[in-house]
Amino acid sequence: MADTGWHDALLRPRSVALVGVSDDPAKTSGRPLRFLKAAGFAGRIHPVNPNRDTVQGMPAFRHLSDLPEVPDHAFVLTGADAALDALEQCEAMGIRVATLLATGFAEAGAAGAANTGRLRALVARGRIRVLGPSSIGLANLHHGMALTANAAFAEPEPPKGGLFVASHSGSLIGALMSRGKRKGLGFASLVSVGGELDLSIGDVCMAGLHDPAVTGFLLFLEHMGHADRLRAFAEEAARHGKPVAAFKLGRSEAAAELAQSHTGALAGEDAVADAFLAACGIARVEGFETLLEVAPLLSRVPPATALRRGRVGVITTTGGGAAMAVDQMAARGLDIVAPTETTRARLQEAGIEMEPGRILDLTLAGTNYQVMRAAMDVFRSAPEYDYVQVCVGSSARFNPDLAVQPALDLIGTPGHPFGVFLVPDAPGAAQRLAGAGVPVFEDPETCADAVAAALARRHPNLPPPAPMPTHGAERLLDEAEAYRRLQGVPVADWVALDAAMPPGDLPFPFPVVAKVLDAAIPHKSDVGGVHVGLKTPEDLASAIASIRADVARAMPGHAVTRVLVQRMRAGVGEVLVGLRRDPQMGPVVMLAAGGIFAEITRDSVVRMAPVDLDTAQEMIADLRYARILAGARGRAPGDLAALAEAIVTLSRLAASPDIVEAEINPLIVLPQGQGVVAVDALVRMRS
Amino acid sequence: MADTGWHDALLRPRSVALVGVSDDPAKTSGRPLRFLKAAGFAGRIHPVNPNRDTVQGMPAFRHLSDLPEVPDHAFVLTGADAALDALEQCEAMGIRVATLLATGFAEAGAAGAANTGRLRALVARGRIRVLGPSSIGLANLHHGMALTANAAFAEPEPPKGGLFVASHSGSLIGALMSRGKRKGLGFASLVSVGGELDLSIGDVCMAGLHDPAVTGFLLFLEHMGHADRLRAFAEEAARHGKPVAAFKLGRSEAAAELAQSHTGALAGEDAVADAFLAACGIARVEGFETLLEVAPLLSRVPPATALRRGRVGVITTTGGGAAMAVDQMAARGLDIVAPTETTRARLQEAGIEMEPGRILDLTLAGTNYQVMRAAMDVFRSAPEYDYVQVCVGSSARFNPDLAVQPALDLIGTPGHPFGVFLVPDAPGAAQRLAGAGVPVFEDPETCADAVAAALARRHPNLPPPAPMPTHGAERLLDEAEAYRRLQGVPVADWVALDAAMPPGDLPFPFPVVAKVLDAAIPHKSDVGGVHVGLKTPEDLASAIASIRADVARAMPGHAVTRVLVQRMRAGVGEVLVGLRRDPQMGPVVMLAAGGIFAEITRDSVVRMAPVDLDTAQEMIADLRYARILAGARGRAPGDLAALAEAIVTLSRLAASPDIVEAEINPLIVLPQGQGVVAVDALVRMRS
Repeated sequence: MADTGWHDALLRPRSVALVGVSDDPAKTSGRPLRFLKAAGFAGRIHPVNPNRDTVQGMPAFRHLSDLPEVPDHAFVLTGADAALDALEQCEAMGIRVATLLATGFAEAGAAGAANTGRLRALVARGRIRVLGPSSIGLANLHHGMALTANAAFAEPEPPKGGLFVASHSGSLIGALMSRGKRKGLGFASLVSVGGELDLSIGDVCMAGLHDPAVTGFLLFLEHMGHADRLRAFAEEAARHGKPVAAFKLGRSEAAAELAQSHTGALAGEDAVADAFLAACGIARVEGFETLLEVAPLLSRVPPATALRRGRVGVITTTGGGAAMAVDQMAARGLDIVAPTETTRARLQEAGIEMEPGRILDLTLAGTNYQVMRAAMDVFRSAPEYDYVQVCVGSSARFNPDLAVQPALDLIGTPGHPFGVFLVPDAPGAAQRLAGAGVPVFEDPETCADAVAAALARRHPNLPPPAPMPTHGAERLLDEAEAYRRLQGVPVADWVALDAAMPPGDLPFPFPVVAKVLDAAIPHKSDVGGVHVGLKTPEDLASAIASIRADVARAMPGHAVTRVLVQRMRAGVGEVLVGLRRDPQMGPVVMLAAGGIFAEITRDSVVRMAPVDLDTAQEMIADLRYARILAGARGRAPGDLAALAEAIVTLSRLAASPDIVEAEINPLIVLPQGQGVVAVDALVRMRS
Repeated sequence: MADTGWHDALLRPRSVALVGVSDDPAKTSGRPLRFLKAAGFAGRIHPVNPNRDTVQGMPAFRHLSDLPEVPDHAFVLTGADAALDALEQCEAMGIRVATLLATGFAEAGAAGAANTGRLRALVARGRIRVLGPSSIGLANLHHGMALTANAAFAEPEPPKGGLFVASHSGSLIGALMSRGKRKGLGFASLVSVGGELDLSIGDVCMAGLHDPAVTGFLLFLEHMGHADRLRAFAEEAARHGKPVAAFKLGRSEAAAELAQSHTGALAGEDAVADAFLAACGIARVEGFETLLEVAPLLSRVPPATALRRGRVGVITTTGGGAAMAVDQMAARGLDIVAPTETTRARLQEAGIEMEPGRILDLTLAGTNYQVMRAAMDVFRSAPEYDYVQVCVGSSARFNPDLAVQPALDLIGTPGHPFGVFLVPDAPGAAQRLAGAGVPVFEDPETCADAVAAALARRHPNLPPPAPMPTHGAERLLDEAEAYRRLQGVPVADWVALDAAMPPGDLPFPFPVVAKVLDAAIPHKSDVGGVHVGLKTPEDLASAIASIRADVARAMPGHAVTRVLVQRMRAGVGEVLVGLRRDPQMGPVVMLAAGGIFAEITRDSVVRMAPVDLDTAQEMIADLRYARILAGARGRAPGDLAALAEAIVTLSRLAASPDIVEAEINPLIVLPQGQGVVAVDALVRMRS
């Protein structure tokens, strides 16, 4: 096991040093002392200030070395140069953890590089763990430890509870805390992880995992750095049954379009992050407020072991309110399921008449406790549901005893998980419900977002870590070499020929395609290096002559020595299947619509590689283009079983450390029973 | 001009009758009296109850005919049957407006139909205007008129202001009012329009248009019924400079997928609603909370006269907060624009150093009044922006004097419009800002949604109302008749031949396609009625023979008498151009990707028809597939000018009342300069 002695020093220190703390409690470097005192920190506080005997009324020390003890944790509040000196002193004294407020590492030219080098060297020695640089600090509310310069901790009564927040952005800690307070949610710890030169967001969460006060984790991610540590934490969190949710920046199409063409573009970083977080069992939400609202829901909806459709039953006291939620849920692929005849009969036994339709609208029944409670009881035990959504209208604001109280009374009883969407502004009801652990949603969009994320969440199912990629120079294989390297993926019949010789008899029938065969020419069509639809030996000979001439013209001095001649195959459609390695998250396999489709649709599906056959089939089901392949509009259905096998085969190249990237584009999907065939391939190796 | 005498009776009655009011103030039929008294209604209230002399302490009348005056407005609270009797009495007495709470019209079988018939007959006589059925009532807060049974009006201090809310859903009135109150927004009137058997949502809004207290309109739409009245109101609202925003249910893909194939599916009702609302100059928002947040913004962002890209400048005190908003804005197509060199120089003169990048992050400058104010001044006068987004972090909650006060001080000064995104929960700042008319956003998603909707809003540009469609039976034209009816749209050369005769010489070159020509066979391929790629007269003769045989086999007893032979043309792509008539919103023209694309992408663009050349070009620009047509990846660019002309030509058929639907699918887009050609067409006529 890794050393975990620093966990307590980070989150539950018995003593802290504030290095460079200001006497002015309003200044950034003065706030931590103010906040620690206000929070009632029970440990010992040691202000360190080279120029003062007292700081904010407390006795201060001139130097770290003057301290009467070795504190567990030092918060270093000075500029970068002084901070590095201080860190080295901390290290020498045996302080376990230091948090580093200073910027001036990543940001600032040569000085930044020098600072970074010095900090890296310190970290590499492994004697002290560092949070930061650019960390605004952290807080453990149950420990009275507001070791932070974040102005948000001026909050007079920070809301205590079970949520552990870790964020790449320091300022959003305050936004989450204040919004959580309004919603009646409480926090255990909140950590600004800063630049992660040592401790990463995954490490920090790992440190909170054994805290019994922590019921779940909320991550605000600006990027996917240190994904290995996040992965390790997520797997451990799943073992402990503590749910993890994440909000990640970078959804915008504008961002996606900045990426390049081919696999790189289609499997943009955000799509890889989606696949990675899903494989980690982390529930990714779309909306910022959802990050808070999803937390209690995740505690009640266990992760699925297989694909879960998400069958939702809806009970409402307001038709319009439920319609908004249902509209949003349907847009996210959830199934709004009508009660079965059995369930309707049980409602009737309970005295509830239901109109035809998918949702149970209690408007006519009148909003009252007995009816709502009975309806919830029936829906929560109906086998057609995974989850029950309760929507409450005006009564939530004025008379919570009617339709809110049943939720409070039923939250501890067996049955499907449920949540309450409060249609009006009803802060009192929201806080009562949240206090009892009932999932509460304040907007139809966040409601649907949270429910979709919770029902889609699965147990972590990450492939084993991929081997370290081979070092060395990259090179592209030519098409013939690529086919050989992709052994196991069917390829359309081909031969490699000497371009200077007459082609002779082919071992497969016409029509054929002739392509220049040269690793230096990956974009063969651009230089006139591809001739398709050749029907006779004469066509072929003439095509080879043209290729030689055209390539010579397009690439002066570059002689064509070889051509690849391949049998032309017509299928029901074509796809792109690719493998690439994200430097942070690891290998992924991508399936995308092929040909001209790929250019105007972003119709692609990404999973962490390698995948098994079930996952490959899920990928096909998730691809919109697969409707064509499956035989839409009277077309012949394609061989999707063979496609799934090809995806699995390609994805297994993840285990070959010398393969940087592999792509079959297109892979022709032949009619059912006839398989799939690659008719072009690109493999980038490192050797 | 239409009779507008009922406007005051609806929204500003001097006297109201409450027909069937209950003595129990908690009952639905008792609430209106309670709410009217609580709201301090200055007019006269006449309770009517056949069984009581007093109701809730007020003297009551047994019958409407006993009243001492003819009230302006009657709120009828009884069940359907008694309500119809009461309405007829109201009519006889000369009451101008009645609001009808009863259900039992649309809903309930034979009884419902009878009730509806009786109500329609009353409405048709035109002596009384009716709001409802199923209206929960309405309120004019400035008039102390809470003429409603909506439990939300138990609100002790309903927030007064300038917003006029009209909703198909009665219960969401309360949700909007309570949420607006939290945000510091105020309301003039709130109207539940119910089943719209007489007054529709457009009529009701029209009645509020001349109220000087009304600054803008918010619509909650469940459907697009009575679109003609909505259109009339929207045009009038634009003339009065009063902005209109709408939230409409029905976005979900699930809903869209329920629609049928072809034009019907692609131009699903929601896409038509989008086009219609945009042409009305109504800002449609995606999020429920956005409907409230967008209102103050619309008062400050005038509608555009032409396409506006939406160039946004961003100033923030929190990097993470701004990143969330920017991510959402970019996803909605807004341009986040970096300041020009000139603007940077002006910032520098003001003492503000800006890091490279698109947004001005004031974190390092420290959050203070002078810096924020100066930055806003510079950005608001920079010509590269249409709008300035200010994001405020923790200080908004704890110290609004720093970064919130500048917004309060600048809202009345000249410059680009701006809005404030409050990153933490900061209800105090939100209410202060809203009170001063500053647009405030509480979530990154609603911020981006509102800004995108406001910047995209244009002046109403609806085509003139289409002529009433011809009555009579529908019939399909055969392909040859369709081509003739689509005069002006280029068609690939064709001839119609007698299928029993030898084809003879063609007036155009081979290759050709032969198609069965018969209005009874719209899906020609399904019955073996199409042969493509015919290269010689022999091919053609044999194809015609096959068509005769195959169709006879597929449709026993149906003889093929004619075939259409058409020159085959290869283009750079193919599209679908269609015209159809929405029964509520009128004719629309649609452009969609053609062929196999149409089946898996919902890549289509809809506008109200007819369109001019500019709009047709906008449609092409909005189609993702147009990237292919424009010559992506080294392909020949297509003749987009000819495509635009074809769209215009087809759209003008909107003026032909006998054309129910027309569709060219596919329209082949030839290389630039060579035009477009239809190679199939479907026209459905009514005659």
